[in-house]
Amino acid sequence: MAIDVLLYDAYGTLWDPLSVMKRCDSCWPGKGAQVSQLWRTKQLEATWLRSLMGRYVPFSTVTREALQYACEALKLSLQQDHESELMGEYLKLATFPDVADAFMKKPAARTGILSNGSPDMLDPLVKHSGLKFDAVLSVDAAKIFKPAPAAYQIAVERFGAPKEKIGFVTSNFWDAAGAKSFGFQVYWINRAGVAAERLGFQPDRVLKSLAAL
Amino acid sequence: MAIDVLLYDAYGTLWDPLSVMKRCDSCWPGKGAQVSQLWRTKQLEATWLRSLMGRYVPFSTVTREALQYACEALKLSLQQDHESELMGEYLKLATFPDVADAFMKKPAARTGILSNGSPDMLDPLVKHSGLKFDAVLSVDAAKIFKPAPAAYQIAVERFGAPKEKIGFVTSNFWDAAGAKSFGFQVYWINRAGVAAERLGFQPDRVLKSLAAL
Repeated sequence: MAIDVLLYDAYGTLWDPLSVMKRCDSCWPGKGAQVSQLWRTKQLEATWLRSLMGRYVPFSTVTREALQYACEALKLSLQQDHESELMGEYLKLATFPDVADAFMKKPAARTGILSNGSPDMLDPLVKHSGLKFDAVLSVDAAKIFKPAPAAYQIAVERFGAPKEKIGFVTSNFWDAAGAKSFGFQVYWINRAGVAAERLGFQPDRVLKSLAAL
Repeated sequence: MAIDVLLYDAYGTLWDPLSVMKRCDSCWPGKGAQVSQLWRTKQLEATWLRSLMGRYVPFSTVTREALQYACEALKLSLQQDHESELMGEYLKLATFPDVADAFMKKPAARTGILSNGSPDMLDPLVKHSGLKFDAVLSVDAAKIFKPAPAAYQIAVERFGAPKEKIGFVTSNFWDAAGAKSFGFQVYWINRAGVAAERLGFQPDRVLKSLAAL
């Protein structure tokens, strides 16, 4: 079916949250990979748990707190200037290598981002990258994180398109399952060739890179 | 404040899900720890994600699927008899070493279990252990997993007690945060002395073992 809107997830799909690893490694030599992975894991968990508890807070809060947790759990001291520096890194994450090419040509459909990121994180990130979209949408408008249906609904309303005419592009399998359950056409970008989680829904297409879109 | 009901979480609090490790190790020599940890991680994640998606399925389904995922992700073949055997292990998990003593004396309050486990898993597990409770409650009655408020509400209705007179005992920090957000008095059993996650709520008491209750 033809697509009216191509809607992208941000973190993990266009931008690589693990690109903070180098900066983590300069703060805690030899521990960069461990810190950045635990940081990301706990950031995601907190979005799901707080949403289920009905206690939404912006992604910037979740991200800062997950960094604090990761340092405490790994018994690393987190100085104020390290915290500020690493939170700052999140505003200029690297894009994945396949992003530049994928956005070189003019898209056939309207494009957008639908991200867990709060506007205070997402807007500077998009600006820094130079990528252009018709709309940059944050779940903050619904005060609940993906994969809750209310989060995906934001894009339906903003674009005024039926959900089955929205193509949703994500590298996070749980996000692909949530978007499919909601009713989007879903493209799962599985760059690393990982196993699909079992969440009751499968993406419409599995692609190895954005280039294959 | 006095407590009318002492309500326990099951998996991770009274029973150790990682006690399946030995059996996993006999199925996949040298890989038991890895399989059992990934199994548990994905089992929990699926409860949160499916709840947020509004797509509840019983814990037995989530548990079986998480085992299948863990094997695929670790590139281990899962034969039908291994799957049945390991699902069977979940019905006779080991209790933690501090459980027996804690349940030796007659409790001053009514006691119960409130678990993510579906009745088909939870009831045989409790029976096998020989532990006695006034009520064994499954979130299956609300068709959503903890830490959603509707899951904790089941105990309020079953016991007819105000939430602030229910003492909730759990080793899972996210469960402690969810129960506190809901309004229970919360005892976090932190046997391993791990860092507290940042979820906006703190337990009322942190104890090293059930013996300190």
